[in-house]
Amino acid sequence: MATIATDQDVVTLVNVFTVSPERQQRLADLLVEATMTVMNRLPGYVSANIHRSLDGTRVVNYAQWRRVEDFEAMLRDSAAQEHMQSASRLAISVEPHLYEVVFADPTSQAGGR
Amino acid sequence: MATIATDQDVVTLVNVFTVSPERQQRLADLLVEATMTVMNRLPGYVSANIHRSLDGTRVVNYAQWRRVEDFEAMLRDSAAQEHMQSASRLAISVEPHLYEVVFADPTSQAGGR
Repeated sequence: MATIATDQDVVTLVNVFTVSPERQQRLADLLVEATMTVMNRLPGYVSANIHRSLDGTRVVNYAQWRRVEDFEAMLRDSAAQEHMQSASRLAISVEPHLYEVVFADPTSQAGGR
Repeated sequence: MATIATDQDVVTLVNVFTVSPERQQRLADLLVEATMTVMNRLPGYVSANIHRSLDGTRVVNYAQWRRVEDFEAMLRDSAAQEHMQSASRLAISVEPHLYEVVFADPTSQAGGR
């Protein structure tokens, strides 16, 4: 579970994988495994949230890190690199960008209903 | 504020706008305005969360709708269409996809520290 808000001390990675539909589930599973075995043990990790597009062609990882430096250190970690390379091989393209939250609707309704 | 979790009754729109850096802030402002004047009054709206990439080249709207049908009804709403067209004109490309959350790390740390 993660919270999106403007007052959190995090940097957000939105990583969009374009994928062929027959590989979508495998890629999602691999990202979950990478999160639970490698990423969540690294310094500055806050959350990772894996999404599967309803049209079968995308997987998105919405992840939060404490600081840009923590994310950059992850990129240099050899176990993380191995997982990222496996994910890249399953995907057609990978588009990672780091973001800041500039607006989170204060009137938004609670989920889970 | 929004929550990402697997047990919520929502469908998630991740809309990635590619933009020239000098137009990034204008596009983010326009999406905030569209959310507060049009989108959040439509049936099935749950949340919208606007993100600006640190490299200046992307704006992401991470939005939640109650059902796919609510999102599709929004696409047919004339005021929403007007805002979406203005956003498209500011962007180089627009990549909207609907998603389901397949994994939200249960061990994730709270934000805001």
